[in-house]
Parts: sequence; C-alpha cells; structure tokens
Amino acid sequence: MRDLSADARLLSLNTATLGPKRSLEDAVEGCLRHGIGGISPWRDKIAEAGLPQAVRMIKRAGLTVTGVCRGGMFPAADAEGRRRALEDNRRAVDEAAALDAACLVLVVGGLPPGSKNIKDARVQVEDGIAASLDYARTAGVRLAIEPLHPMYAADRACVNSLGQALDLCDRLGTGIGVAVDVYHVWWDPDLDAEIARAGRDGRLFAYHLCDWMVPTTDLLLDRGMMGDGVIDLPAIRREMENAGYAGLCEVEIFSQACWWPKSVDEILGTMVARGKSCI
Amino acid sequence: MRDLSADARLLSLNTATLGPKRSLEDAVEGCLRHGIGGISPWRDKIAEAGLPQAVRMIKRAGLTVTGVCRGGMFPAADAEGRRRALEDNRRAVDEAAALDAACLVLVVGGLPPGSKNIKDARVQVEDGIAASLDYARTAGVRLAIEPLHPMYAADRACVNSLGQALDLCDRLGTGIGVAVDVYHVWWDPDLDAEIARAGRDGRLFAYHLCDWMVPTTDLLLDRGMMGDGVIDLPAIRREMENAGYAGLCEVEIFSQACWWPKSVDEILGTMVARGKSCI
Repeated sequence: MRDLSADARLLSLNTATLGPKRSLEDAVEGCLRHGIGGISPWRDKIAEAGLPQAVRMIKRAGLTVTGVCRGGMFPAADAEGRRRALEDNRRAVDEAAALDAACLVLVVGGLPPGSKNIKDARVQVEDGIAASLDYARTAGVRLAIEPLHPMYAADRACVNSLGQALDLCDRLGTGIGVAVDVYHVWWDPDLDAEIARAGRDGRLFAYHLCDWMVPTTDLLLDRGMMGDGVIDLPAIRREMENAGYAGLCEVEIFSQACWWPKSVDEILGTMVARGKSCI
Repeated sequence: MRDLSADARLLSLNTATLGPKRSLEDAVEGCLRHGIGGISPWRDKIAEAGLPQAVRMIKRAGLTVTGVCRGGMFPAADAEGRRRALEDNRRAVDEAAALDAACLVLVVGGLPPGSKNIKDARVQVEDGIAASLDYARTAGVRLAIEPLHPMYAADRACVNSLGQALDLCDRLGTGIGVAVDVYHVWWDPDLDAEIARAGRDGRLFAYHLCDWMVPTTDLLLDRGMMGDGVIDLPAIRREMENAGYAGLCEVEIFSQACWWPKSVDEILGTMVARGKSCI
C-alpha cells in the first residue's frame, strides 16, 4: 500500500468539497498552497471560469485532473429529453478532453418524472452510455460509471452497486470503467470481490473519498471528512491498490452544515492532515 | 396475483404505522373498524399492554399476527453486550410464540460503538442468530431476517440485501427466512431473482409495504404511504406471489411529519384504500 503520510501529492480535490460558493480559481490556488496534487472540477465551476481559462489555470498549476464531474443523467420522460442528455454528454466529453482528465464521471440518472419503472430507467442508462461511448473513445476520454448509494436510486442514479456497474461495463466494451466512491459502496458485502474484478478488467478509473457520519442528517449534504465517520478507509484503499489502482485519492465531501461554511484553508488543511493519517 | 380490491383482510397493520403515541389497543380496534386482517406489533407496544393482555386482545379480535418487531441487534462492543442481546432475543422469541406470530422479525444490528469493522459486525450477526436459532426452533417461532436499506448499515442493520440475507439463511439451516420490505429492497437490481430464490427455499416469511418518497427528507422517519412514492408495488407483489408468498401484506410506515400526526381512522382509511388500489 502506498505511503501517503509524507505529502499530499496523491490527493485530489473535488471542487464540491469547497461548496457551491467557491470558484475554480479558489480550488486551484488552494491545491497549490496545500501541496495537493490533483483536482476534479464540477462542470458548473468549469463553466463559470470558461473552459479555456480553466484549462490554462489547471495546466499552469501542474495539477492532475482526476476526473470531470459529471456526465450521465440519461433517462428522460421522452425522446427529446434523451436526445438533450446525449448532447450534454458530448459537451462533457469535450470538456474532459480539453482538461486531459483521467475520466468523465457518469452519474447515470434515476427515474424520469412520473415513472416508477426502474428497470426501464436502467435500460435507458445503458442505451445512453452506449450512444455516448464511441464519441468518448474518439475523443480519448474514458467514461467512469459512478455507482451511487441505493438511497439515490430514484432521483440521481439507478446504478447502485459496483457489481451492477461492472456488468454494464462488460456489455459495453472498452473505454468504460468505474469511479469507486467509498460513500456509495462501503456497505456492500461484495465490495472486495467487485473491486478485484474491476482491477482485473482494467476498469478502476477513479477513487473518491469522504466518510459516512452516524447519524447522517441529510441524504445529500451531510457527508463527513475522512476519519470522522465509520468507513474503514485504509481497508478499502488496500483493496483498491491490491487490484492495481495507482491513481490519486480524490476527496469529495458534500457537507452543507459542517465543512462548506469553513474557510478554504481550514477545509484543505484538514483534508491534507486526514489524507496523511486516516485513509 | 391475488385480488386485494374487495376488502382489507389480506392487509396487516404494523403498529409503527400509527406512530409512537398510539397503544396496541388503538391498533387492534382500528383494525377491527377497518376490516384489516392482521397485525404486527412492536415489542414496546406489547410491553405497554402486558403480554397476556396483548395476546387476549389480538386473539379476541381474530387478527393474524404477521410478525413481532423485533429481535436482532446482535453486535456489541463486548461479550457482556452480546450476551444481553441473546437474552433479549430469547424474550422476543417467547413473545412471538405467545402471540402465535408468523415470524419474529430480526433487525440484525450495525456497527458496535467505536467500531469501523462491518465485516466483524456481520460475523457477530451470524453468530448471534446461530446462537438464537435452536431456542426459536424449539419454541416453534420462525426467525425472519429483514435486510435493511444500505443507508442503515452503520447503525441499524449490516445485512443490506436480500441476497446477503439468503446467503446467511443457507448457512444457518431451517427455521430462518426473510422479511421482504419494499422500502429496503426496491432498488436492488437482483431483487426478482432473490425473491424467486427465497421462495424456492421456503424462506419468504413476511412482506412489508410502504413507499419511497422523492425527495426523502429524513433517513428514518419519512417513509411514504403506498402510492405516494416511486416504488412499483404491484410488480414486487407479483414477484412475491409468483415465488409462492401467500401471507398478508403488512403496512409499516414511519412517517413523523406526514402520517403520524393524523387520526388513526385517517391513517387506516387511507391504508385500506391504497391497499385496494395501489399495491
């Protein structure tokens, strides 16, 4: 297992960790101040900065782009909605290509409005990824399906386990893999086996970190800083690295009440300290 | 698939649906007024009434007892805690036997305080059930593992899918099965296959209903009335009945803000109407 205790170069900052009010520039400069080696920007932050400026800023800072968040959201109530989703995914691929990102993270989408048919939503997801994959392959952008916690099955992503995501990958072929986020998968009894499978198949494209708080007071915005919750983070990283993952450890914390109100330096200082001691 | 549209005799009322302030008597009399055929009491309500009086009340009303909620909670930080859990489970078995319940529902427990080792918690669960099973068999009480939604893995139950529960059952032998609650399992891509497996193995002991709201504002106490959420309830019941389930449909709704404040008759009137049209 890699030694992360010396510095923060193997950490990556997902811009969501700083909350919605901070700019991409805040994130990039924060990474530089704290010696963080990578960044994973959300697309709203790329749009705010403008793509060319985002590319320049990140390149000048020498940061590895561990992912772009996010593509996906394929299911829709009608054909026009699905067509718009595919268009948006092509734009996301373009942005990931411009940023030379390790992958475009796919949050695949849940039930269309009015639908109770999760099986159909899953078919729409598979169709949507299949329709996007050639474009991504041509652009040299790897697509990373992020299985989301089952509590998001209705409204965010109907791919809810690593095994399910890998079954999709098996059917889709090359250029597609997974983003493993501990928050979404830590509970899975099959986690170790599915991480090993993903490694064997060359599909481990990203690794996201935070922690699961007890109690969790909000389904979306109460994720914890590494070490404050109940996830055995070193155990999962060991499985990832045993399976061949050699990328950065990306920190993505949605924390409206606890972390977002703090200063950028307090968030990043804590993230780096915990990155050295808790993951 | 059975026709439920004529009356409510195939519905069962889990006492949690009426909220913490209503008595077992409130529940029993409500079932009689609304023609509901079964009841599933939580143990705090049995204790309030006193077990002998609870038995008399339910027997006199002619209600089927579809389960007793709940045993389980096996993992603990030390041997003394685990011993106390086993004692409590024997008392729960006694209560289920006295009530002639279809099963004792097991909410198996999560991580002991201070632990991040979910694998060890799962071993403790298996050991705890194994240590309780002979006592239950002798008492003629079937134990029903209720896999809980993964969002409860840390603090309520580390058995989080039907497949995982059935793997446990395979290792434990006879007298043990599952309680399938749509709230906990509706998202599972393997749901149909695992329901069929449970039916083949004779392990479908209980079926619990409510609905998944979008958005869900509280992890524990924001469950929906059947029909108000996104679960395809008829589709799941069809799988249950195709797999041989012939028991009652038990309604268990934890709803602090929406349903618990309403009158017993409003809750049960709606439950019966939805039972006839939505499940």
